[in-house]
Amino acid sequence: MMDVPLNAWLLFSHAPTHFGDVEIVTRFESGDVHRTTYEAFAGRAQQLMHALDHLGLDEQAPVATLAWNSYRHLELYFAVPCTKRVLHTLNLRLSADDLAYIIGHAKDRAIFVDSDLVPLLEKVGELPTVDHIVVLGDTVPDTSLPNVVAYEDLIADAPTSYPRTDIDERTPLGLCYTSGTTGRPKGAVYTHRSTVLHSFAVTSAAGFGLGPQDCVLPIVPMFHANAWGVPHAATAVGAKQVFAAGSLDPAAIVDLLATERVTVASGVPTIWLTVADELSAQQRKLPDLRHIVSGGSQPPRALIERYGREFGIPVAQAWGMTETSPLASVSWPKNHMVDWDDERLVDVVRSQAGLPLPGVELCIRDDNGVEVAWDGKTMGDLYVRGPWVVDTYLHGDGAECFSEDGWFRTGDIAVGSPDGYFVIADRTKDLIKSGGEWISSVEMEAAIMAMGDVAEAAVIAVPDEKWQERPLACVVPRTGASVSLDTVRSHLEQHGFAKWQLPDRIELIDAVPKTGVGKFDKKVLRARFS
Amino acid sequence: MMDVPLNAWLLFSHAPTHFGDVEIVTRFESGDVHRTTYEAFAGRAQQLMHALDHLGLDEQAPVATLAWNSYRHLELYFAVPCTKRVLHTLNLRLSADDLAYIIGHAKDRAIFVDSDLVPLLEKVGELPTVDHIVVLGDTVPDTSLPNVVAYEDLIADAPTSYPRTDIDERTPLGLCYTSGTTGRPKGAVYTHRSTVLHSFAVTSAAGFGLGPQDCVLPIVPMFHANAWGVPHAATAVGAKQVFAAGSLDPAAIVDLLATERVTVASGVPTIWLTVADELSAQQRKLPDLRHIVSGGSQPPRALIERYGREFGIPVAQAWGMTETSPLASVSWPKNHMVDWDDERLVDVVRSQAGLPLPGVELCIRDDNGVEVAWDGKTMGDLYVRGPWVVDTYLHGDGAECFSEDGWFRTGDIAVGSPDGYFVIADRTKDLIKSGGEWISSVEMEAAIMAMGDVAEAAVIAVPDEKWQERPLACVVPRTGASVSLDTVRSHLEQHGFAKWQLPDRIELIDAVPKTGVGKFDKKVLRARFS
Repeated sequence: MMDVPLNAWLLFSHAPTHFGDVEIVTRFESGDVHRTTYEAFAGRAQQLMHALDHLGLDEQAPVATLAWNSYRHLELYFAVPCTKRVLHTLNLRLSADDLAYIIGHAKDRAIFVDSDLVPLLEKVGELPTVDHIVVLGDTVPDTSLPNVVAYEDLIADAPTSYPRTDIDERTPLGLCYTSGTTGRPKGAVYTHRSTVLHSFAVTSAAGFGLGPQDCVLPIVPMFHANAWGVPHAATAVGAKQVFAAGSLDPAAIVDLLATERVTVASGVPTIWLTVADELSAQQRKLPDLRHIVSGGSQPPRALIERYGREFGIPVAQAWGMTETSPLASVSWPKNHMVDWDDERLVDVVRSQAGLPLPGVELCIRDDNGVEVAWDGKTMGDLYVRGPWVVDTYLHGDGAECFSEDGWFRTGDIAVGSPDGYFVIADRTKDLIKSGGEWISSVEMEAAIMAMGDVAEAAVIAVPDEKWQERPLACVVPRTGASVSLDTVRSHLEQHGFAKWQLPDRIELIDAVPKTGVGKFDKKVLRARFS
Repeated sequence: MMDVPLNAWLLFSHAPTHFGDVEIVTRFESGDVHRTTYEAFAGRAQQLMHALDHLGLDEQAPVATLAWNSYRHLELYFAVPCTKRVLHTLNLRLSADDLAYIIGHAKDRAIFVDSDLVPLLEKVGELPTVDHIVVLGDTVPDTSLPNVVAYEDLIADAPTSYPRTDIDERTPLGLCYTSGTTGRPKGAVYTHRSTVLHSFAVTSAAGFGLGPQDCVLPIVPMFHANAWGVPHAATAVGAKQVFAAGSLDPAAIVDLLATERVTVASGVPTIWLTVADELSAQQRKLPDLRHIVSGGSQPPRALIERYGREFGIPVAQAWGMTETSPLASVSWPKNHMVDWDDERLVDVVRSQAGLPLPGVELCIRDDNGVEVAWDGKTMGDLYVRGPWVVDTYLHGDGAECFSEDGWFRTGDIAVGSPDGYFVIADRTKDLIKSGGEWISSVEMEAAIMAMGDVAEAAVIAVPDEKWQERPLACVVPRTGASVSLDTVRSHLEQHGFAKWQLPDRIELIDAVPKTGVGKFDKKVLRARFS
């Protein structure tokens, strides 16, 4: 067989000839909408390749972006790796401190930054490794930053065609730091090979099922695990792409979903909660939307049910991590479940984190490293292995995350079902270890959030002399509603929790603190209450 | 990223844990239906792995099958490569002579044969390279063949679990000979890597879109380019698989499609023609069938239209060759075509051989090797390149098929459209070269077959002193209908053919001769009429 390397050119090369007429749409926070085509995109991305050469950036130089989702960010997604440089997507929700650490740790040589994020970059302070700053627009705003040029000036005069090379597939293509809820952020390095294989998996019907027929809206930042691989995959198959640049306002999302006739959209549960309320309020239907993908954390059961019942839209849960590129599993029903009613489907399929994609292998092990039964009950540590799973972090960080037999220790606690699906019961560090038994904080949170009076809830472990740890429920009541320890305990008892599992203490709070990527930040709660 | 090799184990490993409850159904020619599950399949395949070791077959030994589609054939699909041996699927439509040549050329060490094909194998004569013959069943029929055992006896006592090894992805996995319409058959060698990548492409929404939700019926033999990759891909994603063992009777196919609630089926146009007639006759609906894939040759436009209009089933054309694993392209509509009416979709999309899959690159070149325009008119030689395209044949045969710059010369004449699709205008050797201009025999055949009085038609070139070559129409009239040169010429003229392109001669025949894989065998017609 031909020794064709799996590299970014393989994903990029169809754009001009085969998908030249397909649209790429960007909606800016102002409401302005920019429309282009794959043909124009391919030309501009190749102009950018020349411009990167012109900047004198070495092979394998890290080129950072500090940017929202947009067509220009997509150009960078291909131009940087197609010239053998490494795209480093910076998380714009991080503190200036963390950004300074990451930029220095990665040794970024250039930063491409959105105009409105220039003030954030200014706050980062000295950037000793960085030679070039490029503002993603026509003009450069007033800034104290040195060596700043405008993106459009940078690429303006370059040719729209760039000579393709057969980049070796093990060459690094991208870099993304974990959000770092424990310790300093660590860098996950994606290769050309891992990205191509991951892209194939995203287009698989076992993945997101992306094809030329689709219009996809990743409501996931391009700085967070490559927007779950959607921009690479969509470009490879010529799906129409829609980007929402800037902060995510549910009304704008609903408007984009409807007017662009999006067929597949991906986002975290928090987004889908706000979108559901907006859809209800507007009484809007989305007949083109085939399914939505929910990932990043376990969505509440009520949310999954609501999309099915109220909007007729199936929710596919996806699971993965920055370290798994990120897509590792999606919860599709199997063929023999075709006639099952919604409740049974939610029980067995949609409430689960999925079936692993072809190529990805999962195992669930006990504390002694022995695989546990897939019986729907037994919790264990989730390990993952596959050609798009990291086997090290940048500069050798985090060696403790890799097992001796070649698996990645996810830090998640999972339960496998007899049907072959699995669910994340908790993060290892959030699990409540009470009297030798384990209590899943995630499961308890989901149950509490199913209460009508509850807006949000997080359950944390607090130290206990007798039991080692006990659960504490931090609850955000809905406006005007009242929630007490007794109502929470009796609700949980009615929903299958054993007496010894029930929380002994409740704290009413205004909001659950969130991390830079919108996940519950329990370390803040632990610091406050334990 | 983890250096996980792309090998058959990666496709096989999910079967027991994640898809154990999914069915694999085989319908035999007798009408008997055999049902099993992925769990049982995984156990039996691993028993077979032990049995292959027990037979003393070396690493990389070619292990042949002479068999219909069935669950046992599927077991061989995985057991042979998972033990580093090479699965050689023999085409049971070939002559005993060709089979003798191929078995000797490949140096097959063992042959697994269906009971009813034992007489064919007896006709092949001496099998000097073959040490073992295994009959796929419980018992061995009376035979003159030596060293014959029954499959069920062979595997009966072996353990159902086999130790997995990390097979290098460049290791050969399979072997399939081209049908050989020119010269001796040539062997295409598939590797573990090429097969895994091809399987991902088959599951892609840009390919067949196979996922866990699906039930797939490949009405394509497992001895012909791995049934277009469906068994590998379906196993990787846990789709329910349905096999029709033995000759293909349209009533049996329709019955299987309906009773097993098939969602995706693949076959050649001839099959879809007979299935359409059967569906009409039975007035049967197939509400579960999402789409059918038609490949192997250009389907008549009327057939594509009929499936849409009469049955509401979209036809996706696929194009590929034994040398391309085989799937290289599928003709899906793009997102902006969602509201197009059927006629326009057939014009622009469904009448085309497709958009190339991610990973596959196509180019169309003139006689001087220069790329021609994708203008919907200009014909040229089709070249293909990709990680699942051969770069040589077994033992170095057919070196003339590979260009110096690393592309495979398909032997097809293609026309690219401005929309990025392409269509096969002809085989290079079937093209009619008249007075310096090219006439596509395929296009003319399709037009003639659209006539109500015509059942089948093949157009061949006959030598001509003045024009070099001229078209001759070989026409099979429908029962009771009459067709003449004049009616054919006037029909073609009405349908856009120029005067100089019209055939000067017609031959009425009883049937168009077919090759072992059901394609028009024009060399027989050329021998008869030129």
